[in-house]
Amino acid sequence: MIRVGVALNAPWALRDKNNQWLGLDVDLVQQLAQDMRWKIELVPTTWATAIDDLRANRFDVLAAGLSVTPQRALLVKFSRPYGTYALGLVVNRKALGKDDLLTLETGSGKHSIAVLAGTVTAATAKEHLGNSDLIQINDESQAIQDLRAGKLDGFLAEQPLPTALAHSYPDQLQMLDVSTYGKTAHALAVRRGDQDLLDVINAWLIYQDAAGWIQQREQFWIHSPAWIELM
Amino acid sequence: MIRVGVALNAPWALRDKNNQWLGLDVDLVQQLAQDMRWKIELVPTTWATAIDDLRANRFDVLAAGLSVTPQRALLVKFSRPYGTYALGLVVNRKALGKDDLLTLETGSGKHSIAVLAGTVTAATAKEHLGNSDLIQINDESQAIQDLRAGKLDGFLAEQPLPTALAHSYPDQLQMLDVSTYGKTAHALAVRRGDQDLLDVINAWLIYQDAAGWIQQREQFWIHSPAWIELM
Amino acid sequence: MIRVGVALNAPWALRDKNNQWLGLDVDLVQQLAQDMRWKIELVPTTWATAIDDLRANRFDVLAAGLSVTPQRALLVKFSRPYGTYALGLVVNRKALGKDDLLTLETGSGKHSIAVLAGTVTAATAKEHLGNSDLIQINDESQAIQDLRAGKLDGFLAEQPLPTALAHSYPDQLQMLDVSTYGKTAHALAVRRGDQDLLDVINAWLIYQDAAGWIQQREQFWIHSPAWIELM
Repeated sequence: MIRVGVALNAPWALRDKNNQWLGLDVDLVQQLAQDMRWKIELVPTTWATAIDDLRANRFDVLAAGLSVTPQRALLVKFSRPYGTYALGLVVNRKALGKDDLLTLETGSGKHSIAVLAGTVTAATAKEHLGNSDLIQINDESQAIQDLRAGKLDGFLAEQPLPTALAHSYPDQLQMLDVSTYGKTAHALAVRRGDQDLLDVINAWLIYQDAAGWIQQREQFWIHSPAWIELM
Repeated sequence: MIRVGVALNAPWALRDKNNQWLGLDVDLVQQLAQDMRWKIELVPTTWATAIDDLRANRFDVLAAGLSVTPQRALLVKFSRPYGTYALGLVVNRKALGKDDLLTLETGSGKHSIAVLAGTVTAATAKEHLGNSDLIQINDESQAIQDLRAGKLDGFLAEQPLPTALAHSYPDQLQMLDVSTYGKTAHALAVRRGDQDLLDVINAWLIYQDAAGWIQQREQFWIHSPAWIELM
Repeated sequence: MIRVGVALNAPWALRDKNNQWLGLDVDLVQQLAQDMRWKIELVPTTWATAIDDLRANRFDVLAAGLSVTPQRALLVKFSRPYGTYALGLVVNRKALGKDDLLTLETGSGKHSIAVLAGTVTAATAKEHLGNSDLIQINDESQAIQDLRAGKLDGFLAEQPLPTALAHSYPDQLQMLDVSTYGKTAHALAVRRGDQDLLDVINAWLIYQDAAGWIQQREQFWIHSPAWIELM
């Protein structure tokens, strides 16, 4: 039995309309469990509590599209990175009006930009968009509704979500270019004492990377927009 | 002194006509020993017993073209991967007749396909060619003779062996395309408690990879057919 | 507080005209300390004593453009490599006269070639240029003056220093092609017991590599000649 913590962060971990967990990280841990013939239990957590919950033994692996950072490495052990992802900023065409990225970065803060609370993206937003009004969210689906309705002006998140939204709702939404904000690397995480489990996870990542299976799941979740309709 | 377990798996570990061990993995551990000024002893093992023999302290490093898998990571510590290899299926032209890969994958099992016992390739064969008659072999040289004589219909093994055989005996043998079966990553392995030895091996792999030496040995063993005449 | 050992090895660690430490490795550890909100102390060491000083707890991290080798892995723990560097041989046009690389490699040793004492480059020089007179130096700035004045015939060092010198002083200096001598991989190093610190450093290297920041610093220190005037 392996207990896996999951936190909303589409398309790495999301809930479909039947409340089932889906996403790239969910695929990864389910295939890991199948290859190892382990039972698997998904344990919902939040970005605010995920690392504490892992350390408190509420689950054994955190699978949530977690970005590798040195601060987190004091608290958890990261697996090999399985992918690298850029940020995207999607904005409501009417709510932003004629303003642009420079306004968001240097303006007087009249625009509201949503970011997933507790993530590296939230820290990056504070660094680059600190003059905007940053709204810390926990529920991406609600934020997407608010963005489309103009209650939010923008949403900064890791790709491919921003591009998928702009693609799905071209009349309401558009992208701003934030490619200079850099990328982050995603990995799974275990407790710092769990080197044995980490060795199995790392060997599994090497095994499924060589087999081409991870690239195939990335093709579905990262490089195609099919999943956006599942949210 | 370092004791290295070797098991037949050409061209990573093979015996020449004088019964001397040769191959890419044999080159790797002999150069490692030379660079570290360690004496080296090669200890023959088999695929069926290799991991048990390593754990039972009959040798310190397993060097046999071993594929990284998460199940094995429960039992041994893998080094960094030094290469990634695809599978190939070489068949006897007459023995297979007009049948093709689809017949082998989905047919009623009249064809006999050899695989090295205890390897990841044997597991892949079971998954993809389960309707064929899978023959678990330990002696590649005997299997190659049987394949050429038509006593075996096919031989599934990691590249470059299948391509080298089809190239060497074009009148008798041909390749079938199994590129969809994916690749595996090869690494050296030590006992799970031997982190110090593993650190030296990993640093050595980084050192000789940067120096270009590993690529040079891969050029000889993997990308040229010269070694086939040594078997 | 993190104490970082630095040893002269331009452009990874060098002193400017005001005796301040600069270079790629100095940038790396200063940004690491800033990201972790650690104070940092730079502790000067030499190539002859750097690893002993690290092990004797005179500092916590060695940041000196250190090449990964398996012999050193017995004594320290290496981080992930952050870059791979080739060797270059820059010679004084007049001092070498009409002689060439072959003379240096196989001749009777009348030419003097400087190498940084205690480095992998010094070992490579012994292997390839053993018939020349190898001068073990500790002070690159002095060696550069001697090379330009013709007191030394050549200087073997990791790129980009040799190319930068030949570029800066084209009337006095020129390059000989030693591309066959291979490359080395550079990493930071900690004491063998400091796995927790190593995990933070490795996560930080993944983090800043994904962010593009390491490539940006490599662009400045490795792929542009601007720093040569700082020496």
